[in-house]
Formats: sequence, C-alpha cells, structure tokens
Amino acid sequence: MSVTFPAGFRAAAATAGLKPSGKSDLLLLVRDPSPSSAFAAVFTTNQIVGAPVAIGRDQRFRHLRGQLRAPRALLVNAGNSNAATGEKGIADAKRCMEAVAALVKCAADEVVVSSTGVIGRPLPVEKITGALGGLTAGLARGEEADAAAAAAIMTTDLVPKAARREVVAPGGVVRIGAVAKGSGMIAPRLDSPAHAPTPSATMLAFITTDASIGSRDLQVLLEEACAGSFNRISVDNHPSCSDSVVCLASGKSGVRVEKGTKEWSAFAEAFTDVCRELSEKVVTDGEGATRVFKVTVRGAASSGDAEKMAREVVNSPLVKCAVHGRDPNWGRIVTAAGNAGVRFDPAQAGLTIGPVEVYRGGMPVVEALGDPRLKEAMAAARVECVLTVGAGKGESWMLGCDLSKEYVAINAEYTT
Amino acid sequence: MSVTFPAGFRAAAATAGLKPSGKSDLLLLVRDPSPSSAFAAVFTTNQIVGAPVAIGRDQRFRHLRGQLRAPRALLVNAGNSNAATGEKGIADAKRCMEAVAALVKCAADEVVVSSTGVIGRPLPVEKITGALGGLTAGLARGEEADAAAAAAIMTTDLVPKAARREVVAPGGVVRIGAVAKGSGMIAPRLDSPAHAPTPSATMLAFITTDASIGSRDLQVLLEEACAGSFNRISVDNHPSCSDSVVCLASGKSGVRVEKGTKEWSAFAEAFTDVCRELSEKVVTDGEGATRVFKVTVRGAASSGDAEKMAREVVNSPLVKCAVHGRDPNWGRIVTAAGNAGVRFDPAQAGLTIGPVEVYRGGMPVVEALGDPRLKEAMAAARVECVLTVGAGKGESWMLGCDLSKEYVAINAEYTT
Repeated sequence: MSVTFPAGFRAAAATAGLKPSGKSDLLLLVRDPSPSSAFAAVFTTNQIVGAPVAIGRDQRFRHLRGQLRAPRALLVNAGNSNAATGEKGIADAKRCMEAVAALVKCAADEVVVSSTGVIGRPLPVEKITGALGGLTAGLARGEEADAAAAAAIMTTDLVPKAARREVVAPGGVVRIGAVAKGSGMIAPRLDSPAHAPTPSATMLAFITTDASIGSRDLQVLLEEACAGSFNRISVDNHPSCSDSVVCLASGKSGVRVEKGTKEWSAFAEAFTDVCRELSEKVVTDGEGATRVFKVTVRGAASSGDAEKMAREVVNSPLVKCAVHGRDPNWGRIVTAAGNAGVRFDPAQAGLTIGPVEVYRGGMPVVEALGDPRLKEAMAAARVECVLTVGAGKGESWMLGCDLSKEYVAINAEYTT
Repeated sequence: MSVTFPAGFRAAAATAGLKPSGKSDLLLLVRDPSPSSAFAAVFTTNQIVGAPVAIGRDQRFRHLRGQLRAPRALLVNAGNSNAATGEKGIADAKRCMEAVAALVKCAADEVVVSSTGVIGRPLPVEKITGALGGLTAGLARGEEADAAAAAAIMTTDLVPKAARREVVAPGGVVRIGAVAKGSGMIAPRLDSPAHAPTPSATMLAFITTDASIGSRDLQVLLEEACAGSFNRISVDNHPSCSDSVVCLASGKSGVRVEKGTKEWSAFAEAFTDVCRELSEKVVTDGEGATRVFKVTVRGAASSGDAEKMAREVVNSPLVKCAVHGRDPNWGRIVTAAGNAGVRFDPAQAGLTIGPVEVYRGGMPVVEALGDPRLKEAMAAARVECVLTVGAGKGESWMLGCDLSKEYVAINAEYTT
C-alpha cells in the first residue's frame, strides 16, 4: 500500500483519455474530514510554471498564514501538463478544482491540482470533469486503489513508484505513504516559501500521513527531506515547469508529532527515508537509464561548492556515456568538476571509483587502470565515486544515471 | 591554404604513433625570424588544465610584459592531452619544447606546445622527440603542408577544419590563415589574462598572420573575436582542460596594423570572420551531430543573462533530442530557458522557430503547430529560434547541435 496506507485517505484512478496510450491518466486522492490536518508542498524553481504550480503556491502561502484550511482533495492528471498555457490554463485548472469540490463537498480552494505531460496544450477540461463522477464513486482504501494511483500518474515511467513506512513511537503508531512519477525532465530543484528560491523535471510526488502535525513543522521537514533526496537526483539536467511534492496529513492516528519529542525524530527519519526511496526509484527509472551513478564531493570550501561540482559531473554527457560504456574514464569526471565555476587546486585533488583510487594529488594512479576491482566498480548497477578537492569541510553528492541510445530514441520521438 | 597562407610560416606533420588509428598526430609550425612578430593566446577556464595550458599561460604572461619574445614554433600533438599529469606532465612538455628549440635554433621558452587526446596518461615523449628530425626536415609552405597540418590535429573530427582571409587594405595586402580541431568536449569558455576568468572542450585553433601588429592589440582582438565565435558554441557542455586558441604574427607583409586605422578595421573584421568560420565548422562536426541549432535570446536585463538562457537551451538534452527528431517541441525550449537562474515574466515571453511564432505572451500560438513552415524550419540543416523574454536590451546567442544515438556510441566506446 502507499497513499491510502495512513488512516483518513481514499484514492481512485480513471481513464479520461489524455494519454495517447489510452492508459489511466487521472488520480483523485481524498482526505476525510478531520480536526487535525496539515498541508505542505514544494514546487519547481523554473521561471515557467504550470498553472497547477502557480495555484499551489498561492494555496501554500495562504495555508501557512492561516487563511486557508488544509486541502481535502488532490486531483492529478498525466498526459497534459497545463503549462505555458497562460490565463486560460489557470481558468481551466480552477474549473477542475470547482468540479472536484462540488463532489467532495469542500471549497474549491481546498482542492490541490497537479498536472504532467505535454507542455503548451490547452487542458481538456471536459474529459477530466466527465470522469470525476466515476472517480468519486470509486474512492477506496487498499492495495488495489494504491496500485491504480501509482499507475495513473505515470508518463514515460516504466515502473510505478510507491513507498511506505510505519513508525512505532512511544505515543502510538503513525503511517506514511507515498507515490511518485518521473523518468524524463528530471533534475528537481524545489523551492521553499521561507527562503529565496534555490536553484527543477516533471517529478511529482504525493505523500500522505496520519500523523497529527502542524503545517509549519511539516513544511520545514518536507524541505529538509527534499534537500537530501529529490534535489539530489538528475536524469537530464532539465528541471520541469511542473515539479511538485505535495504532502497531506490527516491526524487520524491520534499521535501528536512535535519537534523535540521522540515521536518527531522517529517520524522525521521515516519521512526522509520515504523521500530518499522515491527519489532513487525515479532516477533508477530515468529515461533510457541502465544504471545509476553517485558522485560525492568532499573537501570543498562549502557544501554549496561541493554540490555545484557534483552536479556538473552527473550532468556531463561525456561522463554519462562513459558510465554507460563501463569505461573508467576518470579524466572526464575530474574535468567536469573543473567546469563548475568553483576554484580548487588540482594538486590537492583525488578521485576514487568504487574502492580504487585512480587520481591522487593531481596525478594519475597508474596501477589503478589494471585493477580488476575498477572494472567491477564500473559494471555495478550503482557506480560510486568520491572526488576530494581540498581540505575544506564542504561535502555534497548527486545521484545521476547513464546516457543511452534509448534516451535519444525516447526523446527524439516523444513530445513532452 | 591555411596556416602557411601568410608569409613567414612553414608547417609539417608526422606520425609519432600516438593515435590508435595510426594516423598522423604531430604538427610543427615554425615562424621564420622577423623583427616585427607578435603572439596572443586564450586558454580554457577549466580548473584542471593540461600541462601545455599551464605553460602557455606563463608564456603569454611574460610575453605581454616584454619578458619573453614571440614564439618561433608551435608543436601540437593529438592522441594524448598531457592533462591531469601533474609535475611530470610539465617536465614532459618542457622536454618536447627543448627538443624543438634545438632544431629550430631558438630558446625553449619560444616554443608553444599544445596537446589533445586521452586525459591522465603520461606523454610518450620519446615517440614525439623521435619524430622531430623528420618534421623539421619536412617544413614547407603550400596546400600540401596545410592539409597535413589540419589532419594531424584531428581526434574524433570527421573533417579537417581550416580557414583563410586576404585583407586588401590601403597599406597593402595582409593574410590570415588558421586550422582548428574539435568534435567532442566542446563548449569553450576561454580566459583572458586581463580580466577575471569568465566561465571551456578540447577545441584547438591556431591562427597565423603576416600582419605587423602589436601583441597587446592582437590579444584584445583575439579575446573579442572568441567572445563572438568559439565561446558561442557547445556540442556537449563540457569544456575541456586543453581548449586553446593560439595566434602568431610574422609581420612579413610589411603592413602595419594599428587601432584607429583603416587597416585595423579591415583586419579585425577578417580575423573575427576566421574565428566565426572555424567555430561553426567545429560545432557542425560535433560528435554525432546531424544539424546545428542557433538560439538567440532578446529582451533580457543584460547580455550576460541572455547568454545564460541561450546556453541552458542549447545544452538541454531534451531540446537537443527534439531537434534531432525534428520535433517543434517549443515547451522544452522555453522551460530550458526558465532554468537558467534568471528571472523573467512568462507573460512577456515569446518564441519563434524559423519564421513561425509558436509562443506569445506566455501562451501557445495554437495555429502555429499546423503551419507547414514550422515543419520546414525544424528539418533545416540549421534550426534557428529566437526567444524574447521582456523589454530589456540584453541579447546573446549560442550555436549548438542535436543529440543522436551516434553521440552515445562514440562516447560510450571511445576513451577521451
């Protein structure tokens, strides 16, 4: 189970006819009314955003200021992103929100919408609203509903993505469930309402929990969890206009989760873990990917500098092709890091691939190329390398994937 | 003709056995002694640099301060980049310089070296110095020598790259000749000794002229010409540790070229034109490329902002695949620009592909998708698009290429 694993949530999927494949394309998730509810969300930092992102940011803004109750429902469609559609896109999204609200019996503002698919095409509102009656009637909890939920939001994904955790804390049992989609346009850099936007793909994730938690605490936790998960992955270095992670809490477990308590630390760990599991599933299912590739950078002046270098390495097409070809081409890795706009002294730099040190003090470790463990490390499902660039304490990492002919086939033939 | 088109230069190529293909891999270019000589150069801004770049920067530094005469010779090898090779790399490069100097009868410091090829392998100095006797004996001017020069520096290049111009100015006739190489690791961002490094592939270009010109003027002209040529191209967004453009002037035309004169404007225009021609040849021969793709950004707050956006668009794998597939997927173009870290208002944004406006005021131009001219524009050998993002005066452009399965094949199988 996933999104209906926590108490207080029901889900249903339907086929509205938005995907050329004719597969299911609509997910409705409803939170039952409850006195202790919460809502948190992060969105893309792309300057071009889908209508659902613009509306969702406004909902988050008003909710965190106490001007709007936590959402009662989430409507997600795949096949059309309702992005780069201007004012008409906003109006179309609001018509969907109103239609859901009428059926769920809540205010239109209490419905969150999310869309993924082709950019710049008008949203087929009638197809969506026409499917809502059946969706509402089909709302359910359980394995079947959850499997349908994960499938309905897929685009070029090959596998559905779901995760769940059960937290047994002193105060009782709390559950977390989640689904995600994403395969191309993946390199989320998610925003924060509290900070200036940090430097996003269509990557969508929806997380539910029955914890009784405050929205401000949930928002901070979500941002921290994203910093170590969704924001650490890249398939193609092209953040989307629709990236969104939305979290709804029902409070139905009756367990109060507050900062500083044992419940908090156990909940936070499980929540973070769900985000990490989903983000790894997304990059593993990256378009055309045959393996993943983790780059850790240590010894930088700051974690921000380390991140810039790690990002440059996982996004270099030359490094990605080398990983695809199982070629221990460490020259591509170190020169990619050298392009991050961060100063470092090559004489202090070193690189290990798997357990093998291939570069030390700006010089090649000549015997490394003959080491059989290097060949083994490059053939692993998860290639791991650690680049050390100096004596600073800045450290970061990124998880990328290889670049294959299949990626080209998918994206030269498919209209996003 | 190319590098020996201007008076005062002789060239020869040889096979030292550095390329697995067994093709020619060594170029020697010699400038005859002359009272009016000049030297200018720009190098990669990568933090990891090849030994030849480290040495070349020092030569440029000392020459511009009057501490070192203009170089008499240039030795270029392909097949081994002598990069990420530490102190040994520097010592190996200097041995080559000394060997050339002994044959040409100049100081070792008056020999410029340049290397491209696999990173992180010791330079096979004996193979190179063993070939120098034959090279020196074979020095010549003419079509044959120039064709051999362009071929010897190729790595994954499919075609040799050369250009020349003859400037008929009031003071007389001045000639410019050049060769370049580059196909992968191409996205030069070249430095300037006068300014902080601006944000580099192995892209090598060697330019000769018989103008009588001052080195400081030539350096400024070279930097300006690179800003509108080599720095505007990207094949794979991975600047190399070896990118170099080196220019030698012999003064043998007897025509003095000074700022503010008619000779200057004619010479500067021809010089800039040579750089533009070579840079276009490099990106057109980009690894696996089947067509080029020009993105112009207008209306930004600054030309720097416009450049960031144009760079993000030409480097997006999703945009590159769309160009490969002749897919007018403008949503990928505008969202790529949205990831450049530059703020703009989508409601002010517009995009044309070829002659067809596809996006206006943040909204799709619905009828555009049916326009036959759009299909034609996407199928052209050079796809052109113009993105307007506001009312500012900042404008820039980048020239990229498509991403094909062939690119993956080349780079998953070839060790750089």
